[in-house]
Amino acid sequence: MLLNKINHIGVAVKSIEAALPFYKAMGADINHIEEVPSQKVKTAFIKVGETTIELVEATSPESPIAKYLEKNREGLHHICFEVDDVAACLAELKKAEVPLIDNEPKVGAHNMLVAFVHPKGNNGVLTELAQYQK
Amino acid sequence: MLLNKINHIGVAVKSIEAALPFYKAMGADINHIEEVPSQKVKTAFIKVGETTIELVEATSPESPIAKYLEKNREGLHHICFEVDDVAACLAELKKAEVPLIDNEPKVGAHNMLVAFVHPKGNNGVLTELAQYQK
Repeated sequence: MLLNKINHIGVAVKSIEAALPFYKAMGADINHIEEVPSQKVKTAFIKVGETTIELVEATSPESPIAKYLEKNREGLHHICFEVDDVAACLAELKKAEVPLIDNEPKVGAHNMLVAFVHPKGNNGVLTELAQYQK
Repeated sequence: MLLNKINHIGVAVKSIEAALPFYKAMGADINHIEEVPSQKVKTAFIKVGETTIELVEATSPESPIAKYLEKNREGLHHICFEVDDVAACLAELKKAEVPLIDNEPKVGAHNMLVAFVHPKGNNGVLTELAQYQK
């Protein structure tokens, strides 16, 4: 099995502030909010067990999240699976003719190597594969 | 923190068979497919780390998943958090005025005590809380 665990689950929100009452009531530590200027978003990270919920808010109308929320409701946006070798996973997916967004790994957040599988390739779920670099 | 881990992530699919190529290419063990007549669905369980992806297909047009797919695309449907005490969580959520679907725990799959939080209460994410009974 090439998928080791869920690294994070991305949730597209209009407002992180408005999004927090559930997690606050559950006693979550939500002090870790980070701005990612390259993506024009800010993100709140909420650790739950071995994974992290990432609440992502657009900081500009040009942000991919702003464009997403023009067409879609707030809610679950993508799942990121942690793997040992993104390139090897992409090779298997190409063999199986699973539609991809990224044909090659690229450097993503936290300096991880990442690649996105097209939602068509995984039942409408935008899917990220991510690998920590040694 | 009252949320111990993500117990499972539910994905609404038109066809489990059509949904499997991604997970097969990733080497997942997908032999565990269960029919749940009470919900008029069949479900494929794919273990990833400490959580499980559940691909849910309607077996009748009256199934809640069939009705969901009339209005929504295939994709991420709900997140289930494992907690020690669903009733205590509901009490905290009521105090915080987070909108709920279930005001009291009920018995769900695998004899767990479960309750659903309204998507409005968690940024458009249909959210389940679940507790193993001793």
